[in-house]
Amino acid sequence: MPELDVVGWRSAIQAAIDRPDSTPILNLKDDGGGIYDAIFVGGGAAGRFGGSYLRAMGGRALIIDRWPFLGGSCPHQACVPHHLFSEAAAELDRARWFSDELFFGPFDESRASILELVGLFRAGRASAHAFMNWQTQVQLDVEFVLNAEADIVDANTVEAAGRTFEARNLVVALGAFQRPLLIPGAGLGGVHDWATLVEDLDYEPTRCVAIGGGKTAVEYGSFFQATGCETTIVSRSPVMRTRSLHHVDEDIRRYVVDGMRARGMTLLEGASVTEIHGAGRVEGVTVHHADGSLETVACDMVLNCTGELPNSAEAARALALATGPDGEILVDDRMRTSVEGVYAAGDVIGAPMEMFKARKCGMTAARNIMGEDHTFDFSQYPDFLHSTYEVTWVGLSEEEARERYDDIAVIRMPPRGLEGDIPLPCAEGTMLYAFAKPELSGLQKCVIDGATRRVLGFHHVGYGAKDAFQYLDHLLRRPDGLTVDELGEMNELFLNPEHFIQLSRLRAGRRELVDL
Amino acid sequence: MPELDVVGWRSAIQAAIDRPDSTPILNLKDDGGGIYDAIFVGGGAAGRFGGSYLRAMGGRALIIDRWPFLGGSCPHQACVPHHLFSEAAAELDRARWFSDELFFGPFDESRASILELVGLFRAGRASAHAFMNWQTQVQLDVEFVLNAEADIVDANTVEAAGRTFEARNLVVALGAFQRPLLIPGAGLGGVHDWATLVEDLDYEPTRCVAIGGGKTAVEYGSFFQATGCETTIVSRSPVMRTRSLHHVDEDIRRYVVDGMRARGMTLLEGASVTEIHGAGRVEGVTVHHADGSLETVACDMVLNCTGELPNSAEAARALALATGPDGEILVDDRMRTSVEGVYAAGDVIGAPMEMFKARKCGMTAARNIMGEDHTFDFSQYPDFLHSTYEVTWVGLSEEEARERYDDIAVIRMPPRGLEGDIPLPCAEGTMLYAFAKPELSGLQKCVIDGATRRVLGFHHVGYGAKDAFQYLDHLLRRPDGLTVDELGEMNELFLNPEHFIQLSRLRAGRRELVDL
Repeated sequence: MPELDVVGWRSAIQAAIDRPDSTPILNLKDDGGGIYDAIFVGGGAAGRFGGSYLRAMGGRALIIDRWPFLGGSCPHQACVPHHLFSEAAAELDRARWFSDELFFGPFDESRASILELVGLFRAGRASAHAFMNWQTQVQLDVEFVLNAEADIVDANTVEAAGRTFEARNLVVALGAFQRPLLIPGAGLGGVHDWATLVEDLDYEPTRCVAIGGGKTAVEYGSFFQATGCETTIVSRSPVMRTRSLHHVDEDIRRYVVDGMRARGMTLLEGASVTEIHGAGRVEGVTVHHADGSLETVACDMVLNCTGELPNSAEAARALALATGPDGEILVDDRMRTSVEGVYAAGDVIGAPMEMFKARKCGMTAARNIMGEDHTFDFSQYPDFLHSTYEVTWVGLSEEEARERYDDIAVIRMPPRGLEGDIPLPCAEGTMLYAFAKPELSGLQKCVIDGATRRVLGFHHVGYGAKDAFQYLDHLLRRPDGLTVDELGEMNELFLNPEHFIQLSRLRAGRRELVDL
Repeated sequence: MPELDVVGWRSAIQAAIDRPDSTPILNLKDDGGGIYDAIFVGGGAAGRFGGSYLRAMGGRALIIDRWPFLGGSCPHQACVPHHLFSEAAAELDRARWFSDELFFGPFDESRASILELVGLFRAGRASAHAFMNWQTQVQLDVEFVLNAEADIVDANTVEAAGRTFEARNLVVALGAFQRPLLIPGAGLGGVHDWATLVEDLDYEPTRCVAIGGGKTAVEYGSFFQATGCETTIVSRSPVMRTRSLHHVDEDIRRYVVDGMRARGMTLLEGASVTEIHGAGRVEGVTVHHADGSLETVACDMVLNCTGELPNSAEAARALALATGPDGEILVDDRMRTSVEGVYAAGDVIGAPMEMFKARKCGMTAARNIMGEDHTFDFSQYPDFLHSTYEVTWVGLSEEEARERYDDIAVIRMPPRGLEGDIPLPCAEGTMLYAFAKPELSGLQKCVIDGATRRVLGFHHVGYGAKDAFQYLDHLLRRPDGLTVDELGEMNELFLNPEHFIQLSRLRAGRRELVDL
């Protein structure tokens, strides 16, 4: 096909989204003939970054995706809308706290609409898709077949768009899907997950029950509540203490969870939803509490936030791939599956279902396919979620650190006992809070091993620090780690959203570290 | 004195601020007798961090300041109010662009008040001061004399609060003061600088002329304009191209400056203010344009943004210290002045007048005084300013890089030519813009040397990336620098406010780097 500009791509993609019977989109060299170094089955983060990396190394890559765009669920239904909604939540939260104060007008809840924000996202997402198609075609020079199901014939052959493509290697990058709710009423109207919310929402929810206690429940629940949709989270575990969330510090968790309650959310922990009621549409749920009691919670939306499962079944069957208990395709640290020449990458290999992992899995597969010996260990990584805050962490929680080391020093802002008494922490995004409502200006902690002076963990609730945690992760994972002394010698950009550098400097002179 | 809690400190400080004749605040051991390792004359960032570091190393430090609190001008008049105002500017800007759209009500300019935000800051600043006094006394165990002028007798003797203190070393950390406007009318009411604005403003300005083209003019000017105070910047240099701003990339500068104009600001470049008119209060200024023509600009406020001068005169005279052309005390890279045993630190040694430098100068002096051989080179550093955006940069601009290297690759978002066509860049703070008004969602650039694959510079306009630049600076200044390959192997937190990691990964596979 000819090269389109982003405006042309946008039209082509939107047309294909709107018409399920639209024809495949082919961007091929030599009409797709010959042998590819690798076919990436699935064009989400893993497939697109894998294919692009392989092409950059001089290989020939083909990416096939059922959607008419590259990038996968992230820009279509998952991370991108969530970020839009979470930004709206943070703004709405601010507008509520400052209602009729300073330059903020009286807060008008009737203006805040989940439906409208979903619509804003849906109207704009094809532009992001267009960019990724354009970038992949023009800037990255990768071949692709879109808007076409891939049929894996064998480890070297994939059919799509009525053609047969041959490759020396396959990379299965088929992502994940929402774990279904296996309770009565799960099929009622108004029972959504993050994907159907974006695709199908056609009314304004007023009361929501979110099932689950991890990122999705906290993020979407906080957003709903901020718009005025009364939200109840029902979670078997304490909220933010789910299996999929590692290293969450308890002080941080409490700050976030207490903050959610202060904003009017109901958090039912140690509880589960056993049934969804309604006639055609959801009208309420039965909650089974830890003590055995039952409660009916009325609602007009249920959000399934119970996590995702690898979308591995077809590929695993076609190729006889070994899989794990949740259906995840088993791979080694080079992304090699149990079948020679077949790799897997991204959510389809299981947790963590995070962007960095998907992209780097794809890159890792590409490098190994191209003959480089490259491994990827994603057992430790920086992590984040949104409430109405940005919550970011890397390394060990204080509790984990105290279990493993004898001599732990903690740098906290605000110091324990001064919460709400001082306009700290403060920086971009928390200045108005710090000066008008200091108890809302966040919490940050740095956990240090006194013996080696190495930082073990960083934790932050606030705004503007998330980006930095990528580099803090990189510094922490060096063989010699990151000491409080090295941190104290860095050049801060004051007022910095996390105050780790200057606070470390105030302790770095001491031979024996103590709390700050 | 007994240890106060932060609430007690707040009262004590506010009382002292309100009564100029209040008595000194003494926090001394042995009643201030004996010999200190160092007396820090001035308790701002340099003195407080220097004194605290020296104490942490086991030394005995005394900090003396004329104000009743530690921390200096930053939390009282400078960085902290500026951050509060810049956050308000960003929020007001968003509220204007989204007036009567989505959940934003119709923008009501009459609610936006410079005077009110100054009042919010002034009412809250004593809490920050209280924290610093408390922290310095209780957590850092440093002695201090506050609310008292220091009279430097000789290199070992300082008088203050009617007492004489002896030390083996002195550290002069007396900060800087606004360069006066030497034009007719400079003494009229309504002619302000960043300090008097906070201290004395007692009316709502409606039209402002900011004199200068550096950080202060951009920051305060953008804030004023955002509140509805029509602002004209008059600058000899192009705005953001002043002597004090290093390494500003031209694309970045244009994005910011064009954005200021799009928001209604008037930028008169190559121009100067030759006179301020008014009867008692300012009513207008005469602008002398580059072509020799004169223009009268009506206004009811003038903000002097012409930079600061080191507050060195008294100390230099008392100790016969060598000084430079702007009065800056000359020091070596250990902060040693021309006089044995006398150090200087912070703004008093000249540019850059930045927080990291002040604090690290103080630390450097402390370490050398305590016998450690420690040097500090602040010739390169990460930098930032606010317009209604956060603008952050480190390393070389694209133009500088192209002058010095033959093979430059630039990674840009949005790519050149796609501005406004795609909802990118996007992350926290730019999601709503990206989806509703993509031309407002920022600009970012990464400048790479193709030969070594090292990143030479990072540049960002948007939100949420400032904190990360502290660590990018640290990584860039390693002897082997930071390559695009190492960057591409980091773990991003998607959507990350700067997209450097994943964009680098899309190029890292290539042996020959090209633009993205």
